[in-house]
Amino acid sequence: MREWSQKLRADGRSIGCVPTMGALHEGHLSLIRASARECDETIVTIFINPIQFGPNEDLTTYPRDEGSDLELAMGAGATAAYCPSVETMYQSDSSVYVVEEKLSKYLCGLSRPTHFRGVLTVVLKLFNATVPDRAYFGLKDYQQMLLMNRMVRDLDIPVEIIALPVIREPDGLAMSSRNRHLTKEQRKDAICLKNALDAATEAFQNGERTPRELEWIARTIIEQAGSARIDYISCCDAEDLSTLAKIDRPALLALAVYFRDTRLIDNTVLSPEKEGQ
Amino acid sequence: MREWSQKLRADGRSIGCVPTMGALHEGHLSLIRASARECDETIVTIFINPIQFGPNEDLTTYPRDEGSDLELAMGAGATAAYCPSVETMYQSDSSVYVVEEKLSKYLCGLSRPTHFRGVLTVVLKLFNATVPDRAYFGLKDYQQMLLMNRMVRDLDIPVEIIALPVIREPDGLAMSSRNRHLTKEQRKDAICLKNALDAATEAFQNGERTPRELEWIARTIIEQAGSARIDYISCCDAEDLSTLAKIDRPALLALAVYFRDTRLIDNTVLSPEKEGQ
Repeated sequence: MREWSQKLRADGRSIGCVPTMGALHEGHLSLIRASARECDETIVTIFINPIQFGPNEDLTTYPRDEGSDLELAMGAGATAAYCPSVETMYQSDSSVYVVEEKLSKYLCGLSRPTHFRGVLTVVLKLFNATVPDRAYFGLKDYQQMLLMNRMVRDLDIPVEIIALPVIREPDGLAMSSRNRHLTKEQRKDAICLKNALDAATEAFQNGERTPRELEWIARTIIEQAGSARIDYISCCDAEDLSTLAKIDRPALLALAVYFRDTRLIDNTVLSPEKEGQ
Repeated sequence: MREWSQKLRADGRSIGCVPTMGALHEGHLSLIRASARECDETIVTIFINPIQFGPNEDLTTYPRDEGSDLELAMGAGATAAYCPSVETMYQSDSSVYVVEEKLSKYLCGLSRPTHFRGVLTVVLKLFNATVPDRAYFGLKDYQQMLLMNRMVRDLDIPVEIIALPVIREPDGLAMSSRNRHLTKEQRKDAICLKNALDAATEAFQNGERTPRELEWIARTIIEQAGSARIDYISCCDAEDLSTLAKIDRPALLALAVYFRDTRLIDNTVLSPEKEGQ
């Protein structure tokens, strides 16, 4: 993989990388299309990364559909796909990891303590294999995007991180590979995530600046969905994820909700400069 | 730094990197000379890396002599020196690190629990700045060399690690920037490190294959030096640093000894295939 990429780079071609775990949906495809517009070559990586799953998480049931993935990726403008095996990526005695010690202590890092270690490590490895100029990430995984920016800054990695908006189903549910696990009833309930974000955003636009109040508004809506079990709802500083007493700078409203074993996340940014006040 | 290096690489020039904390001695110069022989360009990095020092360690007293260092480096064949400031290397909110979770639990990692996190992180950053084909390390820091090899393997870093022999003073003391801290009496006592390694090696060559016995031989000699205080003496597996019951494969005999506040290390490898048996 690296030889091919380095040859392209030596020939002056720019490379975009779209790291995925497969089960591609419109969210991924929007990243691939953006890369295809902005870069000469677009490499989609497809790798279900075992080390970013916790012991009781859904590694074994994570959706896999490589045939369809390749077709979708190429259709969206990818010029190559890199699909390494687990054995290619990890040795039995692998022991070196990339860790983040501040931003990763919040939100998803609380319920998934080794998740971001796994994500950062695999993404650095994928960067070293694909040698991209730019890498594309979706804002549904807002915390992951912050961590990517922090990693390239702190480790001096010469890759530009591009973050692109959440892509949603017609009814507002954020696209996720995990959506296909939802039963019909859960799928109906799952719209509560977007409804909760919308209700809190509306309150924010009407002048509410207390994070705890906005969290409470979101919580009330989600608790009405029968199959929903809240992991977290947090309104925090959008830059460093720390606690906010009052929204006097951009805030992130982020939530993670289980529908039985399926954990979905969503978020929105509330910016006092832009909206209302 | 990276622009300059990448331009050289694009022109087909090979780059060797010799990471140092300055206070250069013949050990460093042997690495620079090797790089100058094997690579078109040799970049010496000089950076006293604060994050590899523990809170009670010798960061503030670590010897500094940049003027003489540059002269020595160029004299040995370096074509460039990279001497970043602490502010260039670290932000006030830096939070991403490279960690190793197996090999770093032994030897120096026990008494210096954040040391190797600091070393791996800074070396990856220096690699990303200097973009070398090869990087040169001395075998005095044997565990560090193992960790470098593990890092480039596990993170798929396209740099070849070259490990070169310990360089010693005429009386056998391993060259170290910290030797200049020794008083006359401590300097005399410090030869006990090499004497201890030699005595254990001799016993090994005469058939002794029990690590605990060899450690005991070394300990007895070091305890005779009045100013010596042992941090550790360990005879372990030379590949993964794990405990050995019997030397039936290459073993590392490594030691760390304080002379008042000055901590010195040394080691030798005992190979049953090669020597005696």
